[in-house]
Amino acid sequence: MSEAAEKAVILLSGGLDSITALAIAQAQGYQCYALSFRYGQRHSAELNAATRIAQQAAVLEHRIFDLDLSLFDNSALTNHTLTLPETENSGIPITYVPARNTIFLAIAMGWAEVLNARHVFTGVNAVDYSGYPDCRPEFMAAFQAMANLATKEAVEGRNITIHSPLISWSKAMIIQQGQQLGVDYAETVSCYQADDNGLACGLCDSCRLRREGFKEANQLDPTRYQPLIS
Amino acid sequence: MSEAAEKAVILLSGGLDSITALAIAQAQGYQCYALSFRYGQRHSAELNAATRIAQQAAVLEHRIFDLDLSLFDNSALTNHTLTLPETENSGIPITYVPARNTIFLAIAMGWAEVLNARHVFTGVNAVDYSGYPDCRPEFMAAFQAMANLATKEAVEGRNITIHSPLISWSKAMIIQQGQQLGVDYAETVSCYQADDNGLACGLCDSCRLRREGFKEANQLDPTRYQPLIS
Repeated sequence: MSEAAEKAVILLSGGLDSITALAIAQAQGYQCYALSFRYGQRHSAELNAATRIAQQAAVLEHRIFDLDLSLFDNSALTNHTLTLPETENSGIPITYVPARNTIFLAIAMGWAEVLNARHVFTGVNAVDYSGYPDCRPEFMAAFQAMANLATKEAVEGRNITIHSPLISWSKAMIIQQGQQLGVDYAETVSCYQADDNGLACGLCDSCRLRREGFKEANQLDPTRYQPLIS
Repeated sequence: MSEAAEKAVILLSGGLDSITALAIAQAQGYQCYALSFRYGQRHSAELNAATRIAQQAAVLEHRIFDLDLSLFDNSALTNHTLTLPETENSGIPITYVPARNTIFLAIAMGWAEVLNARHVFTGVNAVDYSGYPDCRPEFMAAFQAMANLATKEAVEGRNITIHSPLISWSKAMIIQQGQQLGVDYAETVSCYQADDNGLACGLCDSCRLRREGFKEANQLDPTRYQPLIS
């Protein structure tokens, strides 16, 4: 009998990138445990999407972790009185949530330790969201170095490896790779202000990047958009 | 007029170490913001202590952050069905909570960014709790290196510095330093299983280290203990 497959914790937001990271982990033979966060984001439709995706992918377990980031009220994702930008801007966007990836990765690392999993997968991407400091390869490398000292597992010689397979891919490449693995992007919600039914606004940064990705990939955009009010 | 004092976020558990870290930060002139966590710990009397300490120290703000770490059910601090050890053991203790310091520091870093504070103080200590991987100086250095890449502040050239003034001190030294700064240790709760009134068991690891600290420091132990049942 072959050795049991290795376990991996997958950060699953319900968006396009994280479903692709999950598909890659499954294609590589990992037993997948999905972790999502209810952190006060505007787009809670993402969490419904994450739940459906986790079911369809038949992950071993899907946990939604409650995290009240309303303390961090200077981001347009967690402070719903701030206006989301609908045009491209340079610099760090107002949708940046302080320390979000550090916090999410730290909790994923902790759960991995509890599960005796030695792998964490994240869909972070440095290309489309170059404005987010905690999506850059140098940040991910520093997080890995810290993780190698942070856990009981690490002290005992069993490091937890953080995988970011999409980090240097364009949105079009992510879509192409995902489709080769059979990912159904119709299930995913990327919009920062999707409605309760998961319909996308078509206007925010996240919608714009996604739409351009399908165009560049020469693929039909399966996103369900809100009807335009004329 | 002199420049306004710099802001600092202080991780305040309500125990002996963190009240000392707060006193040090205040003595150094920082405007202090205290952050505590309700993470399912047995010893919620700590949080009452943290609230009293924050009030008495007149911090600018004290926030208690809810964090449901029941997902991490392999620690005797968060899984109340596990038995707390009452004798000294080698290795990593069962009270170790996976990734706890990484998670706490990450959230403190995020709040610091929101507050425009460039300092975080923590009472972590590598001497008494040598079994906790995330209390070691090499972990703290790796966290700092990661933090220097993680935030918008850092990208813009304003790093957030993590201060661990007690990291290499013995418990006796911590007590002596704190008393010189006027810390009232009677207010603090260190016990892993304090009762609702904050009375300490006197038996757990944390009580033992604290009691020995007062003895070595030649100080009267102000801890209020539960009456022994004869």
